[in-house]
Amino acid sequence: MKLVNKNCTEFVEALASKSAVPGGGGAAALVGAIGMALGSMVCNLTTGKKKYAQYEETIKDILEKAGRIEKELLEMIDDDAENFLPLSKAYGIKANTEEEKKKKEKVLEEALKQASEVPIKIVKTSYDAIKLHEELVDKGSRLAISDVGVGVQCLRAALISGQLNVIININSIKDIDYVNKVKEETEKLVVEGTKIADEVYKKVEEVLSK
Amino acid sequence: MKLVNKNCTEFVEALASKSAVPGGGGAAALVGAIGMALGSMVCNLTTGKKKYAQYEETIKDILEKAGRIEKELLEMIDDDAENFLPLSKAYGIKANTEEEKKKKEKVLEEALKQASEVPIKIVKTSYDAIKLHEELVDKGSRLAISDVGVGVQCLRAALISGQLNVIININSIKDIDYVNKVKEETEKLVVEGTKIADEVYKKVEEVLSK
Repeated sequence: MKLVNKNCTEFVEALASKSAVPGGGGAAALVGAIGMALGSMVCNLTTGKKKYAQYEETIKDILEKAGRIEKELLEMIDDDAENFLPLSKAYGIKANTEEEKKKKEKVLEEALKQASEVPIKIVKTSYDAIKLHEELVDKGSRLAISDVGVGVQCLRAALISGQLNVIININSIKDIDYVNKVKEETEKLVVEGTKIADEVYKKVEEVLSK
Repeated sequence: MKLVNKNCTEFVEALASKSAVPGGGGAAALVGAIGMALGSMVCNLTTGKKKYAQYEETIKDILEKAGRIEKELLEMIDDDAENFLPLSKAYGIKANTEEEKKKKEKVLEEALKQASEVPIKIVKTSYDAIKLHEELVDKGSRLAISDVGVGVQCLRAALISGQLNVIININSIKDIDYVNKVKEETEKLVVEGTKIADEVYKKVEEVLSK
């Protein structure tokens, strides 16, 4: 059974168990999808309203992008679990001779890179989703302003959580060029994305305190 | 169909739609349950391990509390939706005469208080869950340290999101004593809880950068 087909209770129970998947990566992807879905809800509560007619095209554009992001993040839940399997197997390889140890190291290295793939995507996609909330906080219906805040907080958590799962993998990767490349592209997104998320949240707080 | 019985895709789709529930409150509750479940996973990966034998009793205690918190947060998803119904109805009450307007105002006031109940609980429960992560970051298996980080980030999002749903409701409540009481008890938890969550995350970062 695909993880994404589990109901909320089942997913939370599977997460709580000691089994390797779902773990932090799958959790991050689902929390990101939940965050983006709140953005879609805000779009759906804004579109067609006279008061926001000037933003109609932008809102429709955000809604379309958001739908794609939700789908991608939901798919990442099972992709992350699948990508973890080779790593799980690699750790179990018995290696006694020098040759066997070298071979195991090579298999591990590839498996670690594969396990990093989805977390890297989670960071990139959560960043894109936060950018959409940056537009929504100004152009979405004021009646749903708290949902923009919840959405962006969930995505902030998904962004940072994706990065934690990148780090836990690349910490064991020996290919320094790969490690540096991944670090460079994800760290920038995490720093900038967290900053934008906090700014969006501050705007939400300001509107709510009026 | 109960919201908690929807699978991940269905829940995200229902959230994205313009229907009133699930909304930010239900999303916050689910994200909180996901966060606490990662804490449980860390406990399950720690218990029985020789290296952490000195923490065995504490870990078992955290695991028991965590299980209760997950269950409560999952229940809050549907409780929040149910508590929103009277408010949704109250907004629709037609009121033309002064007497009708007064009556509507009274019904609205009660409905707003009812709609605040679950968000207040989400704040309190997420705070408790963050406190458990404060113990876990020191006593849980180092192999699962990134999951402590993901868990606490999800709970930080749930805490703040719960509070946003408190504010959106109490902003319309006229009973100033009630409003002040709720503000006082939740704001303190949000400020303190966010601070603890950030400290826990910092510790995770430090361990991962060693």
